[in-house]
Amino acid sequence: MAITVVGSVAYDSIQTPAGRRDRCLGGAATYFSLAASFFTDVRVIAVVGEDFGAEQEAVFAARNIDTRGIEHASGKSFFWEGSYMENLNEAKTHNTELNVFAAFQPKIPQAYSDSEFLFLANIDPVLQRRVREAMPGVKLVAGDTMNYWIKDHRPALLEVLKGLDILLINDTETRMLAANNNIVQAARAVMALGPQSLVVKHGEYGATLFSSADHGNGASRTFRAPALPLEEVVDPTGAGDSFAGGFFGYLASQTVLDAAAYRRAMFYGSTMGSFAVERFGTERLQQLTRAEIDERFNQFRALTHLD
Amino acid sequence: MAITVVGSVAYDSIQTPAGRRDRCLGGAATYFSLAASFFTDVRVIAVVGEDFGAEQEAVFAARNIDTRGIEHASGKSFFWEGSYMENLNEAKTHNTELNVFAAFQPKIPQAYSDSEFLFLANIDPVLQRRVREAMPGVKLVAGDTMNYWIKDHRPALLEVLKGLDILLINDTETRMLAANNNIVQAARAVMALGPQSLVVKHGEYGATLFSSADHGNGASRTFRAPALPLEEVVDPTGAGDSFAGGFFGYLASQTVLDAAAYRRAMFYGSTMGSFAVERFGTERLQQLTRAEIDERFNQFRALTHLD
Repeated sequence: MAITVVGSVAYDSIQTPAGRRDRCLGGAATYFSLAASFFTDVRVIAVVGEDFGAEQEAVFAARNIDTRGIEHASGKSFFWEGSYMENLNEAKTHNTELNVFAAFQPKIPQAYSDSEFLFLANIDPVLQRRVREAMPGVKLVAGDTMNYWIKDHRPALLEVLKGLDILLINDTETRMLAANNNIVQAARAVMALGPQSLVVKHGEYGATLFSSADHGNGASRTFRAPALPLEEVVDPTGAGDSFAGGFFGYLASQTVLDAAAYRRAMFYGSTMGSFAVERFGTERLQQLTRAEIDERFNQFRALTHLD
Repeated sequence: MAITVVGSVAYDSIQTPAGRRDRCLGGAATYFSLAASFFTDVRVIAVVGEDFGAEQEAVFAARNIDTRGIEHASGKSFFWEGSYMENLNEAKTHNTELNVFAAFQPKIPQAYSDSEFLFLANIDPVLQRRVREAMPGVKLVAGDTMNYWIKDHRPALLEVLKGLDILLINDTETRMLAANNNIVQAARAVMALGPQSLVVKHGEYGATLFSSADHGNGASRTFRAPALPLEEVVDPTGAGDSFAGGFFGYLASQTVLDAAAYRRAMFYGSTMGSFAVERFGTERLQQLTRAEIDERFNQFRALTHLD
């Protein structure tokens, strides 16, 4: 089933111990779409500037991603500059230019309206809510957010959470949102705000799925997927969005959304995250094959399973 | 097969967000022995002072742990005071009194000499090496160390590593020992120093087993065991030593030490660590049953396995 994603399509200048890239294609919606496109049809809602041309368009087209919802505005695209010199788990932001994103008013193409899955990438919760309300027929809604919205835009974010089935955030964001340092207690508090499932991302240690629903078969409501111990992390940018794309893309490809499907989705999330960081920007996701994805999925199984 | 362990038997005064305990029985060899005693026979080599009496002796006796190698010296036992008020993953040390431990010269009872497994808990590498050399007939040797020995006693520690089959340390210690921030590269560098296997403990995120040997069946050489997401961590003291006790105790109980046995051992390590932190000091380990252990082992399986 098709996923509609709303979020940023942007340019990133990135410095890591492995080197530097200037103005490479990035943004949460970009990473998410590329990762999810290996599992299902993906449709993007975003805004870009005049600096977004045929070359960038081709990246989406190569993965059959529907870009009719990417609005072209006059001005420059969202731009982010950051580095990971001291800590690969946390970006240091040097510069953020919202540019055309500052006045972004998401418009949903008619052709997207039969999407059954909706992903609200990390943007202003006011916009997330608007898109959510404009697509009342969706079957499953997942979303992301960040410390800035949790701290300074809490009322708007709480409205979004009410309409989410799955929230994907990291440890720090989970603790901040719940005002509780214990991750189990914090997860329960976050789920009480709306989402039935919470995926807490732990960076190099993987991710944990907490569920308040038991998906029908009484299986354990908590599931831990590891990250792959990697010889080299070239660029952590987009790892979380790629995780979300693999996770949600896999769910959208399934007819039965039981606990086992969620578990496999966690593995596909980790799988896509592990690829994303192997090269700068979206380079690795652009050159990936489904066979490589399934091979790595099996590596994750071997990494964690007793037999 | 029996394990001989050399290490500290001590008193700890501990403060955590859950409360405070003064002078409770602790020490790496204590946690290790109690945890390992659920799987195999355990024999302790340590030194205690006059403050170690019948009550403490009874804790070991209740688990059938051989204490003939615990020397009783005049003076006071090793004492540690610490807290975990800001971060449950890292103790803040307020006071350390070596006391009788300062002049510790490990003596190995004749009755221990047929031990086939040896665990060198975190003590001066000079003493670790002495015990290792005094027990040339052991089949498998594992050990622990800490930042202090890595930084300031490196030559002595390197000698110990040459005689180890398995080293169990945490992320920070692994990176420090290898002088490499990438954990995969660091693990390989550490194994090049001697141990065929390295268990890197990640605190609340579990632990990873790296192996340079493939244990005979070509299975994946890397294995990640999670930690259990816990509702409440009462006292993290001894979690790592309890992990080591569960891990090594389980291995000592097996006749075939293949990759599958190491994987199960990782799970038993995580299992024992998860119990240790539920109460202050060794309280939980003292009151544990094998049935509870196997029940939790199955919880770990459900937490990580796809089906």
